[in-house]
Amino acid sequence: MALQLLTHREGLGKLQQALSAVDAEIKTCSTCSNISLGDPCHICTDEGRDKTSLCVVEGVDDLWAMERSGAFKGYYHILGGVVSAIDGVGPEDLTIDQLVNRVKKGAFKEVILALGASVDGQTTAHLISRKLKPLGVDVSALARGIPIGAEVDYMDDGTLSLALKGRQVF
Amino acid sequence: MALQLLTHREGLGKLQQALSAVDAEIKTCSTCSNISLGDPCHICTDEGRDKTSLCVVEGVDDLWAMERSGAFKGYYHILGGVVSAIDGVGPEDLTIDQLVNRVKKGAFKEVILALGASVDGQTTAHLISRKLKPLGVDVSALARGIPIGAEVDYMDDGTLSLALKGRQVF
Repeated sequence: MALQLLTHREGLGKLQQALSAVDAEIKTCSTCSNISLGDPCHICTDEGRDKTSLCVVEGVDDLWAMERSGAFKGYYHILGGVVSAIDGVGPEDLTIDQLVNRVKKGAFKEVILALGASVDGQTTAHLISRKLKPLGVDVSALARGIPIGAEVDYMDDGTLSLALKGRQVF
Repeated sequence: MALQLLTHREGLGKLQQALSAVDAEIKTCSTCSNISLGDPCHICTDEGRDKTSLCVVEGVDDLWAMERSGAFKGYYHILGGVVSAIDGVGPEDLTIDQLVNRVKKGAFKEVILALGASVDGQTTAHLISRKLKPLGVDVSALARGIPIGAEVDYMDDGTLSLALKGRQVF
C-alpha cells in the first residue's frame, strides 16, 4: 500500500483529504460512545428500537457484530474495554458511571451484558451487575455454550461444563 | 514410524502382539456402545453414578470429552454418528432403537443430547427428542453460545443470536 502511494503521488493528497474528512465528520456519541456521523448516533436517535432493552458491549466492533446478527433490537452502551489488572485498566477508565446514569434515567427494564467470555470480561460483567441490580433492572449475560458448527469433542472442559449447566429443554 | 519399524525389526513383533492383545481385550459395551475392557463397560457398571440422567453422544471421543470436563455424573449412550443425507447415514444406522429401549426400561428422568452444533447434529437431536418425549422423559440439549475465551466480535451471527436468546440472568 505504501509503495502504491509513493508511485502514484496523486493518491497521497486524496488520502489526506479523506482522512481529514473522516476526522471532521465522524463523531463519538456522547450517550453510548458509538461512532457515527452525528451525536447522538444513528442508533440512539432511532425511535423504532426497543426502549426497554440495553446491550452493553466492549467496543464498536462488538456493536457491529451484534447489529450484523440482527438478533438485538434495543439500544447499546459501549464500555470502551474491560477491567484488566494486566493492562492496568480500572473501572474508572470505562464508561461504567455513564451506564449507571443512563439506567437510572432511562426506561430500561433489562441490561444484557454482551462481553467476551474471558476472565476480564467476566470480572467486568460481575462488577457492572453489582452496580445495576440495586437499580431494579434485570441484568443478564449472553449464553455460554457450544458455537454453531462446533463438535463436542473439540470443546474445552469449561465450555462443556457451562453448556451442560445451561442446557435447554427441547 | 514405518522407517523406525523397518530398521528395528524386533518392534514389528511387539506391535503385532500389542495389536492382537487390544483386539482380544477391548470390548464394545452392548448397553452404551462405549469401548472398554469389559462388557458392560466400566461406566455402565459404575453404581455410584446418577441413575436418573442419560447423556447421548455421537462417538467415544465425545464421551471422553464429557468425562474429561467432569461436569456429567450420569450414564452415556453412544449413537455411532448422526443422521446425514450427504453421507447416506439414516436413523437405522444409529443406535436410536437401543436408546429408546433403554429409556423405556430404565429409571432415566432426563436425557441430555450432547450432539454437535451442526445441521446434521441438530436434525438428529430433533429426531431423537420426538421419539423420547412420548415416553415421559425430559429431553434437553447442551447450551449454544459463546465458548470460554471467545470475543463477541469474532462470533458468527447464528451463535450470537442463540447466545442472546439463551441469555442467563445474573
